[in-house]
This record gives sequence, structure tokens and C-alpha cells, in this order.
Amino acid sequence: MPENFTSRDKTIKKWIDEISRVVLNNIDSQLEIEQKTAPNDLVTNMDKWVEKELVKKIRTTFPSDRILGEEGFGDAIEDMNGTVWFIDPIDGTLNFILQNENFALMLAVYEDGIAIQSYIFDVTLNRLYSAIKGEGVSCNGQRLPEPYDAALEEGILATNSSIMIEEKYDHIRKIAKESLGLRLVGSAGLESVEVAKGSIVAYIATNLKPWDVAPGLLFMQELGLKATQFNNEPLDLLNNNNIIFATNKAHEEIIKLIN
Amino acid sequence: MPENFTSRDKTIKKWIDEISRVVLNNIDSQLEIEQKTAPNDLVTNMDKWVEKELVKKIRTTFPSDRILGEEGFGDAIEDMNGTVWFIDPIDGTLNFILQNENFALMLAVYEDGIAIQSYIFDVTLNRLYSAIKGEGVSCNGQRLPEPYDAALEEGILATNSSIMIEEKYDHIRKIAKESLGLRLVGSAGLESVEVAKGSIVAYIATNLKPWDVAPGLLFMQELGLKATQFNNEPLDLLNNNNIIFATNKAHEEIIKLIN
Repeated sequence: MPENFTSRDKTIKKWIDEISRVVLNNIDSQLEIEQKTAPNDLVTNMDKWVEKELVKKIRTTFPSDRILGEEGFGDAIEDMNGTVWFIDPIDGTLNFILQNENFALMLAVYEDGIAIQSYIFDVTLNRLYSAIKGEGVSCNGQRLPEPYDAALEEGILATNSSIMIEEKYDHIRKIAKESLGLRLVGSAGLESVEVAKGSIVAYIATNLKPWDVAPGLLFMQELGLKATQFNNEPLDLLNNNNIIFATNKAHEEIIKLIN
Repeated sequence: MPENFTSRDKTIKKWIDEISRVVLNNIDSQLEIEQKTAPNDLVTNMDKWVEKELVKKIRTTFPSDRILGEEGFGDAIEDMNGTVWFIDPIDGTLNFILQNENFALMLAVYEDGIAIQSYIFDVTLNRLYSAIKGEGVSCNGQRLPEPYDAALEEGILATNSSIMIEEKYDHIRKIAKESLGLRLVGSAGLESVEVAKGSIVAYIATNLKPWDVAPGLLFMQELGLKATQFNNEPLDLLNNNNIIFATNKAHEEIIKLIN
């Protein structure tokens, strides 16, 4: 792999280590919580602090790069030219607040629209999932094997809450019936990791933001897995997406059932 | 607490420690898997081994006690007289097989129908949740506080897969809409623990077996939480149950919504 990827990989891992220690040390402290678009769409002072810290570090070390961050401390991104960073400072903020676990710090680096590096850190379990294009996906440095190409009926399906709760998704909800069972973690990043590990055959979710899906996309690409929108089009990293992350077999079945 | 509870508590913890080590050491080994009532109702040689080991130890140390075990190596139990042990050797067998995590080894001891001791061990995370009647619930020896009495709209709801997938439960599924979001782990034991920790406001599930609910019931009782059937009746430990484990407020709301 190019020298600059290796060096940037080391830098990013150092940042994640530094910043996540602060998150862990403050996990029991009183959080300042604000509502964004809905009662379950929340942001805390910790989400903001993590994003600001990362933005500061990226601006200092890679001043010509652009940044798309969940909490808005990056840039207004309207194209994927050059190097673009995606930041989700705390993916699964509701879990972070209510459960003190099951959340992830996420980063991805794209160059001219191509996924180059990505990082999903399960902070409380101390599991760092990372990928460099062409080098596969690792957990704490241990390479993940390509998962078995399981069909929907051979595995567990994960979705987001909306698919299960909102009537307009009833036709999608029924896909779960074809699987062995349903799981919901409440963090797009951690569900992506489950697909990458082969622990679930598919993750389907509606209305995900670019920073929710950018890291997982590289994991899918590196492991021979599928990542598309519901209409089978590639993900659009400048807009919201209804996504399918899945084994090849499960993806083919889901595309048929969904359309 | 009575001396015999303390002594039995130590004995049970020693058994769980010994047996779970074997489970962990064999987690990557080739399992013999058999289907029970459905493609997602499975049993492995490891479930059977764990139950047999526990039954053997109980029979040797407490020969006059009776045992109700998931895999059938205990007794035929038709009443709750005397001391009755409930064993779920691996709760979340599907997770055990497909995810190698998110499963629990569970035990509960009842005397004349009253919950006296219970144990839910998250094997891969090495978290032993245990309770003795009147002594509260602990995780690895650290006492859990009574959770805040959150309403449904203030918290996360967990259910089993059936409630989300089967049309006959559509009215129950809609309860999730009143909460902040939905989570599914796929282990009744680990979901009970989440209620006990206050990480979720309620766990509702259909068709659970006595060994699925016997340990969690004591946790709810010790922490001032509610544990009933859908019809607000007490759990029936000799039959299948549709159960609600919840905060007092969430329980009241769910009972209204469900009936």
C-alpha cells in the first residue's frame, strides 16, 4: 500500500486512541443533551467535543483536505473531489446516553470518491475495526476473514428502528420473516461491523447519513460483500441513503423482496 | 441473609466459572447443531454438555432438589414445591452459533415458588449478573442501583423477534412507537439484564419458557421493577409466558396499550 496510507493510518489510530480515552473517562459524567430533529435524535457536549478535536487535528495535519462531520464543524461538501473525511463522533448517541455502551467513534477517508481508509471504534469494548483499501479489514490488528456467503434464511438480519416501527416500511419489515431472526443494536457503525464479521447476513436501514455509511462501505468492499441503496444503486455519499449491507446471496434476495 | 444462601451462592459461582471456561475454549470449535421445533430453534452439543454438567453437580451437592432444564436432562416439574433449579445452559443459542457472543449461561433457584437466587452470565464479556433475595443485584460483585423509573417515551424498548415479525402481534409492535427506539439482542437473559441496568425501559417478549424468565424475575423483584404476563398476572413458572419486564411507569403504559 502507498506509504502515505500507512502513515495516515498510524496518525488516525493515535487520534482515536487519545480521544476515545477522554470519552471513556467521561462516560458517567453529567452530559449536556440537546434535541436535534426529534426526541430520539440527540447530541451531547461529548459528540461535539470529539468532532471538534478531530476537525482540529485534521486541519492541522492535512490542511488541504475537506471534512464532512455529523455535528457540522467540518465543511459544506457538495462533491467528492480530492480528499474528503467523514466523521461520526459518536454513532449511537442514544445508546451512549442511555446505555453507556453500544456506540462507536467513526472516521472514513475518501479520495476522489473512492474509499481509502475507514475506522469504527467500539469504545467500551475496546474493539477497533479498520480498513485500508486493498488491505482488508482488521479488528485490533487481527485480519477478518471474508464471511461465508450465507442466504437470508441461514442468518440473522439487522435493521434500524424505523423499518420495524413505521407502517410505510411494512413491506420491508416482512423481509425479516425470511431470516432466522432479527437484531437491532442502534448504531449503523456497529451493525456494519456485524455484517463484516459474518455475525449477521444483512443490515438494512433507512435514511442514513453519509457519515453513518461511509466507513462501513469500505468494509463491505474489502470483504467481497454488497453495499447498495434499496434500488440497487451505489451509495450516494452526499445524501441520505436507504441502504443494504449484506452477503451477496442475502443482497440478491433482499433486492427482489424490496422492489 | 441465611448462611445456606451464601454458601450455595459461592458454590454456584464456582460452577459457572468452571463450566463457562470450557464453553469459551470451545467457542470456535466445530459444533454439532440440531434443530428442535424450527430452523431458528437450535441446540448444540455445547448446550447439552453445559446442562448435563450442571445437573450432575446439583444432583451430587443437593440431592433432594429438583431441576427444570431447557435440554431436558432435569426432572418433569409440575409444581413449585421445595427447591427447584432452572437451567438455561446457553440462552441465545442462535447468537452462540452465528455470532460467538451475545449469549448467557443462566441459573435460578426457587424455594416453594419464591425466587431465592439467580445468575445470568454473559460469557464472552465476562459479566456475571447475580442476585440473592433481599440482597439486590450485582454485576461481578458490584451492586446495581435501582434504575430511574423512566416512562416509555424516555427510553429504549426491547422485544423478541416474533413481536416484530408476526402479523398477529401488530398491536404489540406499535408500542415501540411510543418509545425512543427499539433494540433486539436475541437473548431473554441479556435483555433482562438491560432492564435491570436501566439501559432499556422495558423488554416485552412472547412465548418464553420458564428457564428464560426465572432468573430475570428475581432481578426485577430486587430492583423494584415490574415482571408480569401481558394480562398483568404474575409469571407462571410452569408454563410458557408472554412477559413484560419494565420500569413501573413503562409497565403501566404497556399494560394499557397491550390490552
